[in-house]
Amino acid sequence: MTWVQNAWYVAAWDGDVGRTPLARTICGQPVMLYRKLDGSPVAMRDACPHRLLPLSMGLKEGDSIRCRYHGLKLGADGVAEEMPIRTDAVNKRICVETFPIVERHRFLWIWMGDKAAADPDLIPNLWPCSAPGWVFDGGYVRVAADYRLMIDNLMDLTHETYVHAGSIGQIELMEAPLETRVEGNSVFLSRWMPGVDAPPFWRTALGKEGDVDRWQICQFVAPSNVIIDVGVAPVGAGATLESHDQGVRGFVIDCMTPETETSMHYFWGMARNFAQEDRGLSARLKAMQAGVFAEDIVVLEAQQCSIEANPQEKVQAYNIDQGGIRSRQIIERLRAAERAERT
Amino acid sequence: MTWVQNAWYVAAWDGDVGRTPLARTICGQPVMLYRKLDGSPVAMRDACPHRLLPLSMGLKEGDSIRCRYHGLKLGADGVAEEMPIRTDAVNKRICVETFPIVERHRFLWIWMGDKAAADPDLIPNLWPCSAPGWVFDGGYVRVAADYRLMIDNLMDLTHETYVHAGSIGQIELMEAPLETRVEGNSVFLSRWMPGVDAPPFWRTALGKEGDVDRWQICQFVAPSNVIIDVGVAPVGAGATLESHDQGVRGFVIDCMTPETETSMHYFWGMARNFAQEDRGLSARLKAMQAGVFAEDIVVLEAQQCSIEANPQEKVQAYNIDQGGIRSRQIIERLRAAERAERT
Amino acid sequence: MTWVQNAWYVAAWDGDVGRTPLARTICGQPVMLYRKLDGSPVAMRDACPHRLLPLSMGLKEGDSIRCRYHGLKLGADGVAEEMPIRTDAVNKRICVETFPIVERHRFLWIWMGDKAAADPDLIPNLWPCSAPGWVFDGGYVRVAADYRLMIDNLMDLTHETYVHAGSIGQIELMEAPLETRVEGNSVFLSRWMPGVDAPPFWRTALGKEGDVDRWQICQFVAPSNVIIDVGVAPVGAGATLESHDQGVRGFVIDCMTPETETSMHYFWGMARNFAQEDRGLSARLKAMQAGVFAEDIVVLEAQQCSIEANPQEKVQAYNIDQGGIRSRQIIERLRAAERAERT
Repeated sequence: MTWVQNAWYVAAWDGDVGRTPLARTICGQPVMLYRKLDGSPVAMRDACPHRLLPLSMGLKEGDSIRCRYHGLKLGADGVAEEMPIRTDAVNKRICVETFPIVERHRFLWIWMGDKAAADPDLIPNLWPCSAPGWVFDGGYVRVAADYRLMIDNLMDLTHETYVHAGSIGQIELMEAPLETRVEGNSVFLSRWMPGVDAPPFWRTALGKEGDVDRWQICQFVAPSNVIIDVGVAPVGAGATLESHDQGVRGFVIDCMTPETETSMHYFWGMARNFAQEDRGLSARLKAMQAGVFAEDIVVLEAQQCSIEANPQEKVQAYNIDQGGIRSRQIIERLRAAERAERT
Repeated sequence: MTWVQNAWYVAAWDGDVGRTPLARTICGQPVMLYRKLDGSPVAMRDACPHRLLPLSMGLKEGDSIRCRYHGLKLGADGVAEEMPIRTDAVNKRICVETFPIVERHRFLWIWMGDKAAADPDLIPNLWPCSAPGWVFDGGYVRVAADYRLMIDNLMDLTHETYVHAGSIGQIELMEAPLETRVEGNSVFLSRWMPGVDAPPFWRTALGKEGDVDRWQICQFVAPSNVIIDVGVAPVGAGATLESHDQGVRGFVIDCMTPETETSMHYFWGMARNFAQEDRGLSARLKAMQAGVFAEDIVVLEAQQCSIEANPQEKVQAYNIDQGGIRSRQIIERLRAAERAERT
Repeated sequence: MTWVQNAWYVAAWDGDVGRTPLARTICGQPVMLYRKLDGSPVAMRDACPHRLLPLSMGLKEGDSIRCRYHGLKLGADGVAEEMPIRTDAVNKRICVETFPIVERHRFLWIWMGDKAAADPDLIPNLWPCSAPGWVFDGGYVRVAADYRLMIDNLMDLTHETYVHAGSIGQIELMEAPLETRVEGNSVFLSRWMPGVDAPPFWRTALGKEGDVDRWQICQFVAPSNVIIDVGVAPVGAGATLESHDQGVRGFVIDCMTPETETSMHYFWGMARNFAQEDRGLSARLKAMQAGVFAEDIVVLEAQQCSIEANPQEKVQAYNIDQGGIRSRQIIERLRAAERAERT
């Protein structure tokens, strides 16, 4: 496998899982997701322990699931509650594997590795997705490419000029000096643009004329998330690269979950602390993001095919690739540690 | 391979093979089937010995087949009769492999193993399919699942409650005591229900009011057939589990032929000894069976996919699985014997 | 690989490559083809050396190509001309593999092997495709079969009787004596038919009544071309098998380029030295050839499938297969020499 196993990955948007089972392959494992009557999420292997029929084809009974083949009934804890012949004594050793799953920051986070290590405190801190005063929305798409290609893509905004020539390419971003920094399991790519003319979008958001300090900070959060902190503040308001809540601020949120070694689940969205009630703006931002990411997906899926068709070719790294390279170094370090632990 | 090689398998319904070649992969081998002018069936490898073009693309000439590529003509015995250049001397050592094939009980039975062992007496005795006083009809469908999954399915009628909830699920069958018995290369699952109220279908078939003795006997016949003897007789008529021709009787016939390790040809039908002339009943029974088996196929194909997607998971066996387990034990015993013979 | 590596293969028709990149897999390698402003052809690996996005998705700038992902700009020689960030110093060691490509006889010929050995003098001499007094046209089709199956097919005209029964099968050709001769890296199959009645097509072409000398000479030209010299001359005009420009003459041209081990690019056409201005005749000949080759492709693709489905079966060789066998012997000899050189 090409991913870190002991980590929380986004399994689904909060709103995409209800009482009806949802089937999704995560880190190579078929998983079924649903919610209990009290709303708490459940994740279990999508295969009945009896004859392996996908449980997601089954019938929900309260918080339990009954297999559609022979009627074995399993509780939300994965343990047998009723045998195929209802009068047979229940063998409580019969169970399906369940996976730790936690709802936080609008996502359901799943842990596919060593269950004893599944500490919810390790869930990436995507606070803008759930903090008061902020609004957050986005979408989901399956992408037929190695999840690391999306990390490369997001941690390198140079590609905007070519991939997004018709949408968000902005020359002034390219010209601002870029600072790269590794901190623990994160990589930061920071641009600080003091005293610049605000672009129309940010001028409207700020609701104020005059020059602004502007920032763009891409942060890779291991094992597979990228959050981009963007915004402007009036010159002189005291905003710094480290602290900048003096103006308007948004976070582009990108969570990539490996499906197989050559495909991913891609969860994306935008959180903002301005015009929170403007639903038209929310809809326009979401449509804009969907369009931009569609441009990326064409490129990433072609890149994946090309990597497979040119097995003897190795990708090269240039200066602009520092963000992706350092992010991959963190992934490799975590994977190597897991391999060492297993042996 | 996952099947017994030295055995007769159904290659086709009698009516599905005529003078025009039919191509079908059986036990992993491409086979061409056709009939001679006298009606007798022919089975040969579907590849010209010259350049391997499928012979089923060829031109029939009398009982012979001429390859459509270079015109090599082969007799029904597989031996060359004419070279590509018609005036060339025929090399009689040129031949294509033929397979023993026998028509019996409305099916064409093929033997893919050691030809010297192909004794027609080994053909399963599906007498109700061809006996006087009986009528038999059915259908064919390719199923993308290991043929053994269908044996499991048929030798366990518990699944009717869930898979066939909307069609044939019958609670009283589930409640009758089940007797399991292995006899040679057969497994019997028997239910004897003395003095019960006849269900509407059987009451009509019997044409008589009053309580009945009812039976349901599933028999696995190695290597890959299941026949289910069902019916009712008036109480006091003398019917027993062993002998029950005092009332009305039907046989559900199921013959599974491996296509590949993960797919099968499924031949199914119903024979009955009542209302033999009622073509409307024949049509309704066939439509009913087609509908029921379609429900099974959805489950079996999903089960096959899930088995492949969860390679580390093993199926478990419960009490209700005795029929399938013992049938598979017979298959495994026969396969082991074949492996021993080969070495 | 199943092909000779150090050889010129047809990559495309001259008219199918323009300034816009064309992507085509040749001998297992993804290749991009385009023309420079001066019309000369360029062939390079279809993968950006940076992140492997297909360069054929890129943007042409003059004779250069700019990758659509990060904007790396490469010259027609494959060497970097501009980095993703335009102001960065160009690293001239960054380059993509280019392949020797030469335009000749209406085709673009590519060399996928050792570049030092790419001598244009080794390009097959298809002079009728470009000589004054001759006219040449044809088509292209991808065929899902090993390229050698097409060589077998073309070097054996016996199959015309069966594969082309409805189109070009001609019994008199089959009856003429056939002479087989190997000369260097060529195989010749020759038929000389002196003093015969001209078939209608040739009678019209010749524009003259009376008996003719007729010929059909199939020539395999290593590694993967077949040219068929056909025509008639008036009796007594002095035509011989070796020299026959006294009447009308045509060449059927067939160039097969391996795409993968089980697929090929097939370039076909016909050159003639009569009625050169008759565009209706050109169109009819092209349509006729397309129809004939479509008949072959059905057979070859079925043959390829059957070869894969019957791995234990070996093709046999008859007298009529001498042409294909000897052509394959030449291919095998060249491949063995290449393997010896590599070790």
